[in-house]
Amino acid sequence: MSSPETVERETGTRFMPRFDANGLLTAIAVDSVTKEILMVAFMNAQALEATRETGIAHFYSRSRGKQWMKGETSGHILKVQEIRVDCDQDALVMIVTPAGPACHTGATSCFYRRVEGEGLVPIA
Amino acid sequence: MSSPETVERETGTRFMPRFDANGLLTAIAVDSVTKEILMVAFMNAQALEATRETGIAHFYSRSRGKQWMKGETSGHILKVQEIRVDCDQDALVMIVTPAGPACHTGATSCFYRRVEGEGLVPIA
Repeated sequence: MSSPETVERETGTRFMPRFDANGLLTAIAVDSVTKEILMVAFMNAQALEATRETGIAHFYSRSRGKQWMKGETSGHILKVQEIRVDCDQDALVMIVTPAGPACHTGATSCFYRRVEGEGLVPIA
Repeated sequence: MSSPETVERETGTRFMPRFDANGLLTAIAVDSVTKEILMVAFMNAQALEATRETGIAHFYSRSRGKQWMKGETSGHILKVQEIRVDCDQDALVMIVTPAGPACHTGATSCFYRRVEGEGLVPIA
């Protein structure tokens, strides 16, 4: 049986973001027009707050151990139109308008290759 | 400057999945027809291998500490058509055909609510 907290989280109308043991949740950015997944990264509570306050996507870098604003160097920010949350509130989907290529490689999306056997093939 | 390994990972043609300190990577399931994001979860190496071998999405549950096949109880499996990988190879997008509602709540997608202030609103 589900706990009252689980029921509230899954069926309720209150935003109760659930951060994991490292204080993070998963955040996916989707292009509002093409519906393409642009990138996925993590957010801590501070990055989520910054995102909601500014309307521009902020994340937490596990490798650098700090918050960053997507586009802070490149200018390719992600303007957030809408934030969706999943059933157990440990993951977000942001519907965004990108100011440029979302990937630091210059690709529109970070997902520019598909797996084929042990290899990778560019997505047509 | 990027290390040779980073360059190979980002621009190469070899699948080199990168698991984090807990042995996990992020895996997103997208409906092949509607392009809707159905769910997001984690995979360990074993779950990824099972997914690739069977063509059915498997994940790793952090709360239960074990691998699971999506749909093992409900029958609502996700048939994997294609797997895409992101620039640094620590996240996957699976293009899938769902056998039923992807969410255990009965919703088509786990992302059935959007954030509005401190509240949540069903997605139209």
